[in-house]
Amino acid sequence: MLDAEGDLRKRPAAHKGRSGGRSARLARRAAAGTGRAPAIITRKIPPYDLLDEAALQRLEAHADWILREIGIEFRGDDEALRLFKDAGATVTGARVRFDSGLARALCSTAPRSFRMAGRDPASAIILGGDHLVLMPAYGPPFVTDLERGRRYATIEDFRNFVKLTYASPWLNHSGGTVCEPVDLPVNKRHLDMVYAHLRWSTKPFMGSVTAPERAEDSIAMARLVFGDVFLEKNCVIQGNINVNSPLVYDQVMSGALKAYARANQSVVVSPFILGGAMGPVTQPALLAQAHAEAMAGIALSQLVRKGAPVVYGNFLTTMNLKTGAPTFGTPEANLSTFAIGQLCRRLGLPLRCGGQLTASKLADGQAMQESAASMMAGILAGSNFVFHAAGWLEGGLTMGYEKFVMDLDHCGMMLRMSGGLTVGEEQLAAEAYREAGPGEAFLGTAHTLAHFETANYLSDLADTASYEQWVEGGRLDLEQRANRRWKEMLADYQAPPLDPAIDEALQDFMARKKAALPDQWH
Amino acid sequence: MLDAEGDLRKRPAAHKGRSGGRSARLARRAAAGTGRAPAIITRKIPPYDLLDEAALQRLEAHADWILREIGIEFRGDDEALRLFKDAGATVTGARVRFDSGLARALCSTAPRSFRMAGRDPASAIILGGDHLVLMPAYGPPFVTDLERGRRYATIEDFRNFVKLTYASPWLNHSGGTVCEPVDLPVNKRHLDMVYAHLRWSTKPFMGSVTAPERAEDSIAMARLVFGDVFLEKNCVIQGNINVNSPLVYDQVMSGALKAYARANQSVVVSPFILGGAMGPVTQPALLAQAHAEAMAGIALSQLVRKGAPVVYGNFLTTMNLKTGAPTFGTPEANLSTFAIGQLCRRLGLPLRCGGQLTASKLADGQAMQESAASMMAGILAGSNFVFHAAGWLEGGLTMGYEKFVMDLDHCGMMLRMSGGLTVGEEQLAAEAYREAGPGEAFLGTAHTLAHFETANYLSDLADTASYEQWVEGGRLDLEQRANRRWKEMLADYQAPPLDPAIDEALQDFMARKKAALPDQWH
Repeated sequence: MLDAEGDLRKRPAAHKGRSGGRSARLARRAAAGTGRAPAIITRKIPPYDLLDEAALQRLEAHADWILREIGIEFRGDDEALRLFKDAGATVTGARVRFDSGLARALCSTAPRSFRMAGRDPASAIILGGDHLVLMPAYGPPFVTDLERGRRYATIEDFRNFVKLTYASPWLNHSGGTVCEPVDLPVNKRHLDMVYAHLRWSTKPFMGSVTAPERAEDSIAMARLVFGDVFLEKNCVIQGNINVNSPLVYDQVMSGALKAYARANQSVVVSPFILGGAMGPVTQPALLAQAHAEAMAGIALSQLVRKGAPVVYGNFLTTMNLKTGAPTFGTPEANLSTFAIGQLCRRLGLPLRCGGQLTASKLADGQAMQESAASMMAGILAGSNFVFHAAGWLEGGLTMGYEKFVMDLDHCGMMLRMSGGLTVGEEQLAAEAYREAGPGEAFLGTAHTLAHFETANYLSDLADTASYEQWVEGGRLDLEQRANRRWKEMLADYQAPPLDPAIDEALQDFMARKKAALPDQWH
Repeated sequence: MLDAEGDLRKRPAAHKGRSGGRSARLARRAAAGTGRAPAIITRKIPPYDLLDEAALQRLEAHADWILREIGIEFRGDDEALRLFKDAGATVTGARVRFDSGLARALCSTAPRSFRMAGRDPASAIILGGDHLVLMPAYGPPFVTDLERGRRYATIEDFRNFVKLTYASPWLNHSGGTVCEPVDLPVNKRHLDMVYAHLRWSTKPFMGSVTAPERAEDSIAMARLVFGDVFLEKNCVIQGNINVNSPLVYDQVMSGALKAYARANQSVVVSPFILGGAMGPVTQPALLAQAHAEAMAGIALSQLVRKGAPVVYGNFLTTMNLKTGAPTFGTPEANLSTFAIGQLCRRLGLPLRCGGQLTASKLADGQAMQESAASMMAGILAGSNFVFHAAGWLEGGLTMGYEKFVMDLDHCGMMLRMSGGLTVGEEQLAAEAYREAGPGEAFLGTAHTLAHFETANYLSDLADTASYEQWVEGGRLDLEQRANRRWKEMLADYQAPPLDPAIDEALQDFMARKKAALPDQWH
């Protein structure tokens, strides 16, 4: 006799229901139940509160201390410095110092949550509150897939990932720089990126932040699609503002921030701190620093335009102690994710954190272990907005086609988890226990038949077959199955309609902008 | 200009500190800091509370309803039925029904936590309270490694995993049936398994439960090592009692349970429910059922011997809706893990849940995504005891050598996460901000130098090198690196000393037992 908890083959109850016509019928019904999340996703699970009140107050006090004693530099942006000075901050050169509580008070005019429109009404999302928004990786200059390997990304790859995201049932945001199209001139590629989001998707998206004028171009293109009046009152485009941590905003970032805020469009203010390099190596210091940096940027957005929608972002991670290389999905980074969620909730703003992050070069066990851990931490931390929810490899240098669909599947799982448990009469299944008592199989009960299709998330990539079936199927690993999956998704992709007049206006705008400037490649 | 959040190469602060003699010195110091957890591990993070009070009360009421209206069968065990009847339960045939609150009241004499001795004092663990115990997979009849592939496990594999567990810095329990040595007769292999734990490790372990007399043999062997007097007062061996869910204990399991409890040794009472087969397909029903099943078994242990140490176990998982195959690390299973933790805490008993579970046949992305998710859920659920913390593949049918060390690394991460964040003066690093201000690198600060070695968990398997270095290193994936690692660990293994007289007594006991019975192979 085997003493194997896992040896399911010996369990009579499991066997009993598996044969017979009823289970075959169940299988057919279940096959249809893959599902698709709505664009507006509501979390039904509480956030995980890691730190107690005393620790949180201490972190907030330390953030205040950093803002008061050390200060934040806004380099090369006289307008920002003037706005801060007028608001009561102490400005010395580029350094802005805030009295205790000032930055927090300036943040208070930002909305707790806001709606963001997509190109069709069904694609609208809500950022903040109990809502959850997932978008693909942001920024990788390389792409990789199983056949062609790692290479510089092109605009064709960019379009592919916009299409894959549009086709995904689990991502409700099209992202921004889903990969860097390095085959296009540096000063013009933002036009093609914004166009791709507008043309090949209807989901909300991000515009350029690499120069204030590119941010303005991005907003102008959104205006052509959504109209001046609508855009003035509704968020339709976003900019991701990475703080030049430690404690610096350069004029590119503050300029882009101001452009989006002025147009009443959203910015995500994201301190980017690799502990030990852009901040101390201990997580509590990083948390206070990130909190200070985020509040300073959000304060600026509100000084530019009170009530402009913002997201409190962060990207805190660790490094390998031997080499100084950045590391992801680590226990220290995940602990900080939990804590930053608490700090953000006390500020009452939409939270960006989490992501399927990894340092791995390929979509192997390391990639998925690190990604699953960091994603779960972000979801449990109460994240409202997850960047890098799909595709990220190699510390964000590479966007992986296989990794993208592997992550998508995990996004589906996280959305199911976010739906929580409903403990009601129907879920407690009293009748099923009267129908199938001790030692009997539940597979054939009326309750099981009624709930089979919707009870469980159905992965489209996980292999759960028997060993023998798996061998017969060619011993494929997850990455190999994912290779098939993204190709199917691209082959099945159907472009959403776009009014030809709007398309023409967009093309015309791009052509004029491209003609007006010589190409730059650096 | 690249708009890559992940492109760390462009960040001056990160670069600044990486060159130079100081960082080289840091690297040398950090290399020494791999660490090793103590045997008694204390959790410093709060558990995650998924359900609110009303939902928990509803689940408890439903468990009471199951115990009262449906009942639990104890088949073929007249002694158990008599004990329950004498305690006030209603016994009809094999069916035992409990008035509301009776089972819970009977559980109340079990200790909230207890100490378990290992063969040397430094190996003692505490089960329950804020403590955490991790042990390898339990039960797989197969093993696999990259070179030899999947095959039936042998006693040599068993010894290898006992040795690997002993060598592991993160597992503090040697486990039980770490794999099933199918090269030995069914009725005698428990002797060799118990011997292997006692001979090749000093960590606490589990004995046999496949027949009451094998449980007695296991306890008798522990007696030879620990002595009658010590064993009478101290827990030194455990039995894992899998409930024959739904709602049945057979005489093998109740017999083994009684043998361990009578000897004042610990049992882990583990309902094993595959939702849809051994219970309804909705998680709330499974939670109530598992709670009822666990309480009934724990109640029996206390009727046999008041105060006998027990662990409230569970193994709840889901099935693939298309095929009926068991699935692991799924969102539904993880939600149940969170909820079961709450139910157990309200009962005030040590909790077993979680594990690095997967349906995958190999240690690929699927394996690690599922494993990481289920492990993190268990740790955040407040688990005190994690079975299957290392090695489990293929729904528990296979123990993987590479998976084992990959999981070990994640165990190290989970232990670091369980240590939480200390928000104190030293961690807030005020001086570091005076030393390195806005835009400056923190790598060279006194604070960083003081904390570099201990700040972060250092993975011994994750690849965090540059792409170019990774290519030069042969493009190894995690599984390939793990292949090297377990071989190194086995090669470096050093057996703990064992008193030759005790060894002889054990060998003599085994020889007599083996000679007394003909071999059985089924």
